[in-house]
Amino acid sequence: MELLEQRIRKDGIVKEGNVLKVDGFLNHQMDVSLLKAMAEQWRADFAGKPINKILTIEASGIGIAAIAGLVFDVPVLFAKKSKSINIDGSVYCSRVHSFTHKVDSDVIVSKKFLDANDHVFIIDDFMANGCAMNGLIEICEGAGATVEGIGIAIEKGYQGGGDALRERGFVVDSLAIVESMDAETGEIEFR
Amino acid sequence: MELLEQRIRKDGIVKEGNVLKVDGFLNHQMDVSLLKAMAEQWRADFAGKPINKILTIEASGIGIAAIAGLVFDVPVLFAKKSKSINIDGSVYCSRVHSFTHKVDSDVIVSKKFLDANDHVFIIDDFMANGCAMNGLIEICEGAGATVEGIGIAIEKGYQGGGDALRERGFVVDSLAIVESMDAETGEIEFR
Repeated sequence: MELLEQRIRKDGIVKEGNVLKVDGFLNHQMDVSLLKAMAEQWRADFAGKPINKILTIEASGIGIAAIAGLVFDVPVLFAKKSKSINIDGSVYCSRVHSFTHKVDSDVIVSKKFLDANDHVFIIDDFMANGCAMNGLIEICEGAGATVEGIGIAIEKGYQGGGDALRERGFVVDSLAIVESMDAETGEIEFR
Repeated sequence: MELLEQRIRKDGIVKEGNVLKVDGFLNHQMDVSLLKAMAEQWRADFAGKPINKILTIEASGIGIAAIAGLVFDVPVLFAKKSKSINIDGSVYCSRVHSFTHKVDSDVIVSKKFLDANDHVFIIDDFMANGCAMNGLIEICEGAGATVEGIGIAIEKGYQGGGDALRERGFVVDSLAIVESMDAETGEIEFR
């Protein structure tokens, strides 16, 4: 998506350690008009699919998923990390490793809100190795729900998570796929 | 706000230990059309105020804040809990206690995105003791930003956090204020 790639080139910062900072418009401060344009791109790409629910994972997926919920006109469900005392015992759970935060988390969705009637569009802001996404897919499979597609804002293509999911048959719609980036020059190459 | 109170009566569940579960429409699954109506109420209530930024705190405030960002047509900033390796060293920080999760967190906002020119509307899904809100206000004060108002979806009025802020002169616009609730009967009384 040209608009997002331009914004990444303009405001994204490449840092040592394979970090692409997009905290000015995506995952700390959010440019909500950009997020709306991204959601409209996904809606066009998945036109005709019987999507009735959007699923994401806290925290930085929630903003883009909420706006996509408005655009798709469906409810939005966000998986929670680690067990909250406010969540019932009756949950789908998947163990997910975060390379960013260097911890394992239990990712949890209440069984009340996901079942075999659901046709789910899964959204997240980033995909690298795909660990979080695999957790969300596992939760959908546990519920018997159909994964209609996966929408990612920025995929780190060279880390392979997206292509592994495509090989498994999932439709992964990443709006920007970074093929390489250079912390010294700041250059970013898109697929 | 009548629409929200009705929804809380219909789908909210009062549990032992002072817990009001609204995970079916507010803080796990989100009814985004309800969230949009709530944001429109706030926009009407704060019409004429020079609000140029919305501030919230992860995780469950993000969805409602993102949708409010669209309605107000301003960027949305969400404070992060605990230090992420993807956040710069240059941050405003406040220590916040969570009674829900029984932990202290450092709440962090990058100095790049908040300064003395900002007129901030602070949003959160719940207010009880007001600990999280005090942290966000402290961050705004540290930045020299003006807090134009505070929008809360559900305030637990009997816990006093909202009234303490009103006494300090803040405009706290809670769309539903719970005065009492009874886990045995399930009854909820609004202010």
